[in-house]
Amino acid sequence: MWERLRDKRLADKIVTADEAASWIEDGMTLGLSGFTRAGDAKQVPIALAERAKRENKPFGVNVYTGASLGANVDTLMAEAGIVKKRLPFQADATMRKKINDGSIMFVDQHLSHTAEMVRSGVMGEIDYAIVEAVAITEDGMIIPTTSVGNSNIFVEQAKHVIIELNMAQPMSMEGIHDIYTPEAQGERGPIPITSVDQRIGTIGIPVDMDKIKGIVISEQIDSPSTIVEPDAETAQIAAHLIAFLREEVAQGRLPKNLAPLQSGIGSVANAVFNGFLDSEFTDLTVFSEVLQDAVFDLLDAGKIAFASGCSITLTEEKMKHVTENFSKYRDKLVLRPQEITNHPELIRRLGLIAINTALETDIYGNVNSTNVLGTKMMNGIGGSGDFARNARLGIFVTKSIAKDGKISSIVPFVSHVDHTEHDVDVIVTEQGLADLRGLAPRERALKIIDNCAHPMYRDQLRAYYEEALTRGGHTPHVLEKAFAMHTRFAQEGTMLERQPVLSR
Amino acid sequence: MWERLRDKRLADKIVTADEAASWIEDGMTLGLSGFTRAGDAKQVPIALAERAKRENKPFGVNVYTGASLGANVDTLMAEAGIVKKRLPFQADATMRKKINDGSIMFVDQHLSHTAEMVRSGVMGEIDYAIVEAVAITEDGMIIPTTSVGNSNIFVEQAKHVIIELNMAQPMSMEGIHDIYTPEAQGERGPIPITSVDQRIGTIGIPVDMDKIKGIVISEQIDSPSTIVEPDAETAQIAAHLIAFLREEVAQGRLPKNLAPLQSGIGSVANAVFNGFLDSEFTDLTVFSEVLQDAVFDLLDAGKIAFASGCSITLTEEKMKHVTENFSKYRDKLVLRPQEITNHPELIRRLGLIAINTALETDIYGNVNSTNVLGTKMMNGIGGSGDFARNARLGIFVTKSIAKDGKISSIVPFVSHVDHTEHDVDVIVTEQGLADLRGLAPRERALKIIDNCAHPMYRDQLRAYYEEALTRGGHTPHVLEKAFAMHTRFAQEGTMLERQPVLSR
Repeated sequence: MWERLRDKRLADKIVTADEAASWIEDGMTLGLSGFTRAGDAKQVPIALAERAKRENKPFGVNVYTGASLGANVDTLMAEAGIVKKRLPFQADATMRKKINDGSIMFVDQHLSHTAEMVRSGVMGEIDYAIVEAVAITEDGMIIPTTSVGNSNIFVEQAKHVIIELNMAQPMSMEGIHDIYTPEAQGERGPIPITSVDQRIGTIGIPVDMDKIKGIVISEQIDSPSTIVEPDAETAQIAAHLIAFLREEVAQGRLPKNLAPLQSGIGSVANAVFNGFLDSEFTDLTVFSEVLQDAVFDLLDAGKIAFASGCSITLTEEKMKHVTENFSKYRDKLVLRPQEITNHPELIRRLGLIAINTALETDIYGNVNSTNVLGTKMMNGIGGSGDFARNARLGIFVTKSIAKDGKISSIVPFVSHVDHTEHDVDVIVTEQGLADLRGLAPRERALKIIDNCAHPMYRDQLRAYYEEALTRGGHTPHVLEKAFAMHTRFAQEGTMLERQPVLSR
Repeated sequence: MWERLRDKRLADKIVTADEAASWIEDGMTLGLSGFTRAGDAKQVPIALAERAKRENKPFGVNVYTGASLGANVDTLMAEAGIVKKRLPFQADATMRKKINDGSIMFVDQHLSHTAEMVRSGVMGEIDYAIVEAVAITEDGMIIPTTSVGNSNIFVEQAKHVIIELNMAQPMSMEGIHDIYTPEAQGERGPIPITSVDQRIGTIGIPVDMDKIKGIVISEQIDSPSTIVEPDAETAQIAAHLIAFLREEVAQGRLPKNLAPLQSGIGSVANAVFNGFLDSEFTDLTVFSEVLQDAVFDLLDAGKIAFASGCSITLTEEKMKHVTENFSKYRDKLVLRPQEITNHPELIRRLGLIAINTALETDIYGNVNSTNVLGTKMMNGIGGSGDFARNARLGIFVTKSIAKDGKISSIVPFVSHVDHTEHDVDVIVTEQGLADLRGLAPRERALKIIDNCAHPMYRDQLRAYYEEALTRGGHTPHVLEKAFAMHTRFAQEGTMLERQPVLSR
């Protein structure tokens, strides 16, 4: 205990989760640690949800986090009906339902923007920062666990701080974090990172000891990642992408070890990284948000020289392996705040290769990452916009069809735009890859249809494009039919036209 | 002459525009100076268009610039049919027609992206950089004229350089430029600018003398700006915006002299800047692309302390005044390459207030800046995306209606997305202002309709939103009616419903 709580005066502040939860008042704003199910504050938010259920009177708080939470925290808070506003990202089925029925106000925010918003005071003050820690040092620093997220800015800006001291996380995590918090805009200097392995900050989050209101002892480990194994299609996506990168190296446009890689969360992104295992590429670097299973496989295989991230999110088996062998990875890892991992300054400077998942893309290269059929929130944009906009290469991957072919991921007009045609360089599906760099919309359309769309949808998409061409324009469209595939799915359960297009 | 051409060995390279134009071969790629009608290469491109017309045989080149050109250069090149690919921005009626009929391939690019694209070699090599200069120094530097644009990267990367030495531009322009060109991605350090008035580079563009193939003497001044005077509506837009900024200062969210201001090109943006003339704000700074009339009015009035830009684009009368009194402005101005003025690193660090013009916005805050009715290119996205994405405040201004009310600038679903809901903080029309920061889509919709839409369209927009609410979702929509206002305009010449909505 005292090796984790090194200033014994803090002993007075140890409380139960229930007691800490009792301090939180209706209307308050909470800043929780947690990024992609990793390093989340678990005890206090769960106790708060239970308290609200028990008390059964109107109660609501605004919940800001790094990204998605594990440990059923979002589920339980949503079920208890205590979340008024939620930002900047979530990935929980129960919460999603409440977001989509309008009972939770969800602000779907670029992950690098939250810290600036909190710092500027636009959304009012944070009442409680509640952050998980592996230790609190004698000189007053909170050592985070498996993620940093927005914890540093929450601790800096909040009126009060509650720490969940997690005894189940290995002490060997101390030293892998690099905490750097920019000054206010207009008063800051450059962020001095010029390579992915550089350290520029402190090993923990500096905290004003007087702001620490409570310390809750926890032994609950992170929820495991929910990713599924690579399959035939994701392996094909990886193969197309690696062939493309190989050609970029051959053309002298990328160095042999490529450029720092970023990859979004999820099974497809993990599978793409897996593809590097059997590739010729070596001495790779990662400058990403979440570090998933594949990053550790690549570290084990000696393929990745260094990985910079914001969180570590692993499947159950991998988590066990990594936790038990953490000292092996220590020197090859750094965890930074999401304001730094996703900072436009660093993304542009380092020249990242950004690989993110699309929900759907259209024939001109616009990408929808968030809203199913334009209306229903899935998870959120996450960091994909931070990366795609400012990266060297903005790459989006998706399977060409979903729901056994009833949905085509390539459509005439995406039903929600998260990444515009100006930001999307490359689209990859299991069918192939479309390199859109330097192409006008009319040059992109058939390339995307022919290379990326599923064969069962190509005629239908070509027919739309040909009709659009008769209307003319820089970006030809038939606006009254732009969403016909989406409305057909809503009405008939499939985007596919009944009549074969060829018989027209 | 020799005060402008200081290395006399260069005398051998003086040629006529016709001779220089004769070197350019079919299929070549040209990088031209010129940004918002300022500092454009005029003689050689015009001679090239004339040559192609005279020769009357198949001939085409790719034309890259800083932004839009004056001096009818785009008109004449488009008329001559010699432009295959054009990027990253244009604002010419003749060229627009050819872009929209598909005979010119236009790549509508973020203005900060072009330099990276050229540097990485993705689009192949630049054969000729053709740049306007006020002088060529004894130590081999090209001193630009009224814009920098992409000239530095074109000169660095091109195989050959042609210089148009413009005797009509005042020698006193020497010293106002600050040329800084980043290294390749992954090999560069931070860009060391921390305040708008800081100089980090050289006063001219370094050039390998052996690459200079020709020098053409010119006396043609820039085409004047085409902006129109502020009117009642643009004055109202300015007043709403200034009231908002005043409140931000009162709330302690902005310093008294605000933050560096950026403003897009055009009459509305100029009028908004004009609004500061009668405001209490002083000691303002500008970190923008084009410096228009209002910036000089504000400099004259002592309101602006310093202005950093990429070009100076003025109306005829103002141009005369500024040119004749240039020494008065010298110490309060700097012109930088557009890669620097529009760089995400600096925009985020300095915390810009970015004010750009929307063509249309939707009820959830997505903005269309480029494609009329989703299909016809107007000018291009320009730098608006560079700024809005990474700024402290992404503000979009537009009049609430166009074409005498036949078009509403607020629609249910924008027909093309250039700026997503994630990037748009504030929308302003003459009707009012909608502060969207920290709001979920359902919180934004009525705010935008009630504050920003023209009263004649409010019922119609509310009816759409109410029907959308019955469908549910995080971003409620009725996809089959999302573009009904646009298709009604195409069919009936107005977006307005015939039946008053109130009678429903």
